[in-house]
Amino acid sequence: MSRLPSPAGAGYFARHTVTGLTGELRAGRVSPEDLVEQALAAAARLEPELNAFVTLDEDGARAAARRATEELAAGVDRGPLHGIPVAVKDVVDTAGLRTTMGSRHFADRVPDRDATCVRRLRAAGAVIIGKTATHEFAYGPTGDRAAGGATRNPYRPERMAGGSSSGSAAAVAAGVVPVSVGTDTGGSVRIPAALCGVVGLKPSHGAVPVDGVYPVAPSLDTVGPLARTAADCRLLWNVLAGRTAAERDDAPVVRRVGWIPPDTIHPTSPRVTEAARACLAGGGFEVEEVAVPEAAALARAYHTIQGSEVYAVHADRMATAADLYDEEVAERLRGAARVRGWEYVRACDLRDRAREAVTALLRVHDLLALPTVPIPAPPLDARARRAGDAGVDVRTALLALTSPWSVLGLPAVTLPAGLVDGLPAGLQLVAPAGGEELLLAVAQELHDATTETEPPVPARH
Amino acid sequence: MSRLPSPAGAGYFARHTVTGLTGELRAGRVSPEDLVEQALAAAARLEPELNAFVTLDEDGARAAARRATEELAAGVDRGPLHGIPVAVKDVVDTAGLRTTMGSRHFADRVPDRDATCVRRLRAAGAVIIGKTATHEFAYGPTGDRAAGGATRNPYRPERMAGGSSSGSAAAVAAGVVPVSVGTDTGGSVRIPAALCGVVGLKPSHGAVPVDGVYPVAPSLDTVGPLARTAADCRLLWNVLAGRTAAERDDAPVVRRVGWIPPDTIHPTSPRVTEAARACLAGGGFEVEEVAVPEAAALARAYHTIQGSEVYAVHADRMATAADLYDEEVAERLRGAARVRGWEYVRACDLRDRAREAVTALLRVHDLLALPTVPIPAPPLDARARRAGDAGVDVRTALLALTSPWSVLGLPAVTLPAGLVDGLPAGLQLVAPAGGEELLLAVAQELHDATTETEPPVPARH
Repeated sequence: MSRLPSPAGAGYFARHTVTGLTGELRAGRVSPEDLVEQALAAAARLEPELNAFVTLDEDGARAAARRATEELAAGVDRGPLHGIPVAVKDVVDTAGLRTTMGSRHFADRVPDRDATCVRRLRAAGAVIIGKTATHEFAYGPTGDRAAGGATRNPYRPERMAGGSSSGSAAAVAAGVVPVSVGTDTGGSVRIPAALCGVVGLKPSHGAVPVDGVYPVAPSLDTVGPLARTAADCRLLWNVLAGRTAAERDDAPVVRRVGWIPPDTIHPTSPRVTEAARACLAGGGFEVEEVAVPEAAALARAYHTIQGSEVYAVHADRMATAADLYDEEVAERLRGAARVRGWEYVRACDLRDRAREAVTALLRVHDLLALPTVPIPAPPLDARARRAGDAGVDVRTALLALTSPWSVLGLPAVTLPAGLVDGLPAGLQLVAPAGGEELLLAVAQELHDATTETEPPVPARH
Repeated sequence: MSRLPSPAGAGYFARHTVTGLTGELRAGRVSPEDLVEQALAAAARLEPELNAFVTLDEDGARAAARRATEELAAGVDRGPLHGIPVAVKDVVDTAGLRTTMGSRHFADRVPDRDATCVRRLRAAGAVIIGKTATHEFAYGPTGDRAAGGATRNPYRPERMAGGSSSGSAAAVAAGVVPVSVGTDTGGSVRIPAALCGVVGLKPSHGAVPVDGVYPVAPSLDTVGPLARTAADCRLLWNVLAGRTAAERDDAPVVRRVGWIPPDTIHPTSPRVTEAARACLAGGGFEVEEVAVPEAAALARAYHTIQGSEVYAVHADRMATAADLYDEEVAERLRGAARVRGWEYVRACDLRDRAREAVTALLRVHDLLALPTVPIPAPPLDARARRAGDAGVDVRTALLALTSPWSVLGLPAVTLPAGLVDGLPAGLQLVAPAGGEELLLAVAQELHDATTETEPPVPARH
C-alpha cells in the first residue's frame, strides 16, 4: 500500500493540496490568481483527452481569483478555501453560469441563482473555475453518456471515469483542481472517486441542502465533496455542510471496524477486495468480518426506489421531448417507468427494516468497510465485464456496493486503495448518520499510515 | 334539523346512551349483565336482516359482563365504558376470538393476542359482544362484498350500509350496541357512519396504535370509534387513544368554520349538501366558503397511494390464492397492482404540498366542513348512481369527500345531518392533526343545538 502515483501528465494540484497551500497563500508566496492560472492551464492542456468539463469559466474564475487575491492582501481571510480553485458538477446551479445537467434539454440554461452549496462555496472564498461533466441528468454510473460525450479516466483514457460525477472526479485526479463538488444518489460521488483514485464523501441524506441541484431521486440525493486527500475533502465538506470551526467535532475514536466481504453483496474482483482489505489493515483497527444480510436486497431496492423517483422527475419531459435524451438514458427511463407502485412500497418497507438492522450493527462496530466498486474502471461503453469468475452487468456492478448505504441515508467515504492493473481501487467506509467527521478522520488516518511506510522518494513514481 | 329517528325495530341502545347509563350502572339500576343480554337479544332479532356481525361471542360476552358486574359490585370502577357492550370490526385481532378480515383466506383464524386497541377496551371494562362485518379486507367503501355477504342499511335493508366498517356502523345505528370500533383508511369509519346515521371519528394518522389490525394501506390506516352520539363517541375515543381523564383538553373554542362546497371536489346531491349545511348552521359559527383547490387531486392521489400500498400487502396472496378473494375485490386488487411507482411518488409529493396548503387554511379557520358522502346510501350492489345531474361511479363517489383528509392524515368526524328521502346524510368536520377533541366537542355542540330546538316529544318520531 502506498499513496497512488498521479496519472501521467497531471496538473499542478496533483502536487499541491489545499492544506499545503494554506500557509503559502497567506505568506504571499502564491496568490489565488496564480492558482487559477494553474488550474486553467491544466484544464486547457488535459481537456482534449479527459473531457472533464462542460463549461470552463475563465473570465469568471479570473475575476473571482482577483477578488480573492485583493481580499487576502487586505487581510480579509475567508478560511481554508479562500482563493482555492474548485470545480462544480453541472447539475448544480451557478448564477450566470450555464448549467446543463449534461443534457441537450438544458444546453443553454443559465440559472439566475446559486444553489445553496454554491453560495457557501463563494462565501468561503472558493474560485469556481467551471462546471464538470456528468452522466446525463446524473442518471448513470458510467459517465459515458452525456450530451457532451464521455469523460475519460485520467489513469487510462480508454477507460470510463465512472459516474455520475465523472468530471468532478477526473478533474481532481488529473490535478486540474484540488477539490470539486459532486452529487451522490446511489454512488455518484463514490464510484467515480474510486475509479479515478481520489477521496469522495457521500454525506448523510439531508446534511447538505439540495436546493438548486437538479434532482435524480429526492429520497436519496446528496451533495458531496471530492479531493485528492481526506484532509482537503474535509475542508470542502465543512463548507458544503455550513459548519463553522466551532462546530467541528473532536477527533473521534474508531476501534472496531466491521468488514463486509463484498461477494456477499455482488461478485467482486479478488484483487480489488485484496487492495481494499490491505488499505484498511493500515489503520490498526480491530477488524471483524460482519454480515449485512439485507445489503444485496438493498442494492435491488435501490433500483426500485430510484427508478420510481427519477421517472416522477422526468415523466413530462419524456412525454414531450424523449428524443432529446441520450438513447440509452431514455431507454433506462422507460424501464424506470415500469416499476410498480407496490414494488416501491415494498422497497421502502425494506429500507425501514434494514435501517434498524444496520443501525444495530453500527452500535457494535464503529464503522463498516468494504470495497467501493467491485471492479476497476471498465472500458468506455462496456456494459458487461468479469468480476473474478463471474460475468457482471457493468451498471449493476458499479452501483452494487455503494447503493445500499444510499438507500439507508448513511454517510460513506471512498479513499484510494492502490492500483489494480494500473487502475485505482477504492476502500469504502460507512458510518452512522451524522458520522462524516468520523469517516474523514479515519480516511486521513489510513492515508497517514500508508504515507509513513513510504520511502522519502517513492520508488514507483 | 333534528336528531334522526331511529331505524324501525331498533334495539335497546337506540334509546340508551353510554353517557345516560353511567349513573344507572353505578346505582345498580341496571347491570353489565342486563346490558349484554339486551345487546345479544337485539343482535339475535336483527341479524337475519342486517348481517352486521361475522361472529357473535355470546359466551365470551356473558363472561365479561359477569366480571364487569362483579367488579362494579365490589367497587372496582374502570371508567365510563365499564360494562358497556362494544362491537369490534373483524379486521382487529381479538385473542381467542375468530378474526376473518371478512375473507375466506382467514375464515378459521383465531388470533392469540389482542390488538392494542382491544387490550385498551378490555382494560376499560368494555364487553366485546362480537366481531362486525367488513368489506373484504376492509378494501372497499360499499360493504357489500365479503365472505359473509353484504351488510344491510338499518334504515332500508335493500340499501348498502357503506364500508368498509359496515357492521360497526349498522350495529350502532340499529341499537345493538351503543358504540363500536371501526377502521378508516379513506373513509371506512365515516362513510358507513354517515350512510347509517351515526357519529364516526377518523383520528389523526398514528393517534391510535394499529398493531394487530390487518393493514389496508399503512400510510393511511387508522382505528376509530362509532357511536350514536358525539358524547359516547368521545368516551370510546379516549379509551382507544389511551388517554386518561387528566390528559383531556379543556373545551376548545371554535369560531370560524370553512365550508367547502362539495361539488368543487365531486358531484354531490343538492339535498345532501343542503342537509349538511343546515346541520352546520345550528352551531352559530362564523361560516365562510373556502376553496381547497388540491382536494379533488387528493381524492385521486388517494387511489394511487392506497392502491400501491394495498397491493404490497396482498401481492403474495394474489399470486397463490387469488380465487379465495371475492371476484370484485380481486379485480380491484389487479387494478391496484398496475399503479406505477412514479405515480405513487408524485401522489406523495402532492400529499406534502397539499398538507402545507391545508394546514395554512386551518390556521385561518378552526375547522373545515363539508358533507361526508355525496349521495345517500345506494342500493346493494349498485355501482353507478346519480348525484344531482351527474352520473357517478358509486365507489369513487363514496370516497371522494372523505379520502382527501385521509391522505393528509387529518382527523375528521361525521355526524348525522338529517334524512334525505328517508336515508341519513352526514356532515363531516375536519380539524388540524391532533384535533379530535375539538371535533367531538363541536359535534356534541351541534347535537345539543338541534336537540334544543326539538319539541319535548318529537313530533316526527
